[in-house]
Amino acid sequence: MQLKDIGEFGLISRFSKKFLDLIPNGFVGIGDDCAVIPSQKDKNFLVSTDMLVENVHFIKSEISAFELGHKSLAVNLSDLAASGAEPCGSFLSISLPQNVDIQWVDDFFDGYASLSKKYNCPLLGGDTTKTLNAIAINVTVVGRASVEKIKLRNKAKDGDIVCVTGYLGDSAGGLEILLDGLEKTPLAKELIKRHHNPQPRVEQGIFLASRREVNAMMDISDGINSDLKHILSLSGKSADLHLEKLPVSELLKEYYKGDLQKIYNLACGGGEDYELLLTVDFRYFTDLSVQFEKKFGNPLYAIGKINGDGGQLRWFENGFCLNSISGGYNHFSA
Amino acid sequence: MQLKDIGEFGLISRFSKKFLDLIPNGFVGIGDDCAVIPSQKDKNFLVSTDMLVENVHFIKSEISAFELGHKSLAVNLSDLAASGAEPCGSFLSISLPQNVDIQWVDDFFDGYASLSKKYNCPLLGGDTTKTLNAIAINVTVVGRASVEKIKLRNKAKDGDIVCVTGYLGDSAGGLEILLDGLEKTPLAKELIKRHHNPQPRVEQGIFLASRREVNAMMDISDGINSDLKHILSLSGKSADLHLEKLPVSELLKEYYKGDLQKIYNLACGGGEDYELLLTVDFRYFTDLSVQFEKKFGNPLYAIGKINGDGGQLRWFENGFCLNSISGGYNHFSA
Repeated sequence: MQLKDIGEFGLISRFSKKFLDLIPNGFVGIGDDCAVIPSQKDKNFLVSTDMLVENVHFIKSEISAFELGHKSLAVNLSDLAASGAEPCGSFLSISLPQNVDIQWVDDFFDGYASLSKKYNCPLLGGDTTKTLNAIAINVTVVGRASVEKIKLRNKAKDGDIVCVTGYLGDSAGGLEILLDGLEKTPLAKELIKRHHNPQPRVEQGIFLASRREVNAMMDISDGINSDLKHILSLSGKSADLHLEKLPVSELLKEYYKGDLQKIYNLACGGGEDYELLLTVDFRYFTDLSVQFEKKFGNPLYAIGKINGDGGQLRWFENGFCLNSISGGYNHFSA
Repeated sequence: MQLKDIGEFGLISRFSKKFLDLIPNGFVGIGDDCAVIPSQKDKNFLVSTDMLVENVHFIKSEISAFELGHKSLAVNLSDLAASGAEPCGSFLSISLPQNVDIQWVDDFFDGYASLSKKYNCPLLGGDTTKTLNAIAINVTVVGRASVEKIKLRNKAKDGDIVCVTGYLGDSAGGLEILLDGLEKTPLAKELIKRHHNPQPRVEQGIFLASRREVNAMMDISDGINSDLKHILSLSGKSADLHLEKLPVSELLKEYYKGDLQKIYNLACGGGEDYELLLTVDFRYFTDLSVQFEKKFGNPLYAIGKINGDGGQLRWFENGFCLNSISGGYNHFSA
């Protein structure tokens, strides 16, 4: 049997069992955006890590070194945001070919440093090593949050409004243009830029984590159709979502000339938007969304609600239940 | 200009400047075995990270999956040991080809879990991703230590005895046998085993960290000739070391048939022994070494002393000063 036969999530559930007995009370281990390491008297520590591999996560000739450095940190800060933690430092391991140009390396670190400065999150350590072929980049971020403010995936409640903090699908559109080698029109270039320059929702995450009406939260990295299932299965809840309520940008509509099926397919199944996905007590949703818009310039976009037990995700389009929606990224699947 | 023109340490000093202004008071950032993140009222957090790349750090056909899993965690726990921290959790990112056999993956995680259990250090998170060619493995470990017990590289004092916790050179001997494709005699196999199965000195590190007479400490990963220079340059001190005092195993002597030049070259320039290297106040050295031997079965091996300022490392052989010693691993060097 090979890895592709069990897939990424099969692999994770296979090995995570080996460590369950070791995890002390109060810790949060494998399965959420961040692990939580309790501190007896202080704010808890939250840790998350992500690896980017050349030709799997990025194509060196398509993304600038500055963008790649920025994105390497951004996708990790997004995990801290999803738990509501304040960043306090990062660790970078990078394998590089010996003949890489120093200018490329300088630009990479300039991109990384620009985001470090924005969130006052210093690079505290790491590892540099050579590689004989693909570049591999691993970032680990450490953040802090009071225990009562940490948001997890397993706390969705019946009746909660499911919502997101911004547009979905732009990043997947940009990726598709790159993978299919489509013509780089000005609109196409803009979508590629969205794919290469994700903005972690750090302030939004900290704000939402401070609100008791927010029950479950995570970030959207694999695509909402795949990601929401983690919240549902860990909370033991089902959800009804409405395709036509997915927030999509004018840019995406314009590029795909109003082809709604294509657009909603990208918004629902495509990954790497790095917006936050949360479930909110329905009684306080409108009030929270108004406050969110005042602070951040856009509302929380309601896309459905938590509806009973069982872990099922049902999609509707203009009131009609859809049979199934595919999409969501899974490494190792054939 | 290419990366190989500035080398690994040139690269690190080049980018670490970009982050200096961001590091808050009380933090320890780039340049020691671990970063230190202070906790106001609790034990501080220590974090370290290391990346292993296929065909650079290991050859998949030569190392068993169990050994590779064990080693991936071991080299990181060694960094916690070097700072005197108690392990509290690890994070593993691994990129794997889709066609890797599940048995290999299971064995890898069994090796990783065996060391996790030994030190009660659960895997708390990570990332799994595919790769199109080489496997990359990144481990981040988190530990805790009271601020007054953390040992750093910059605290060596004049007159300190420089010592190590165990034999040097076995791992480098094993690596040489692999790289040169030498015959795998029983002795050769034993040296290869030492290379593939490093034992992090976690209990030793915690014990030594509790002793005030230990001034500076680190682990030996690149080779003592290279590693001690970090202690010297950060402490602003010079040292005199004696080749013939380097502790070497009977195994190494037997394999190289008493060729002392070869043996000391491996012990001094070869890396990956993962013993601890420390400097101890000379007044308390003998007493500490006796206690160490009672606890761990071998003494602290004195190999020289800290002698004045300036950051110079001088090697002697039977009382004669040697002109220079090469060795110590540097990624990216041509």
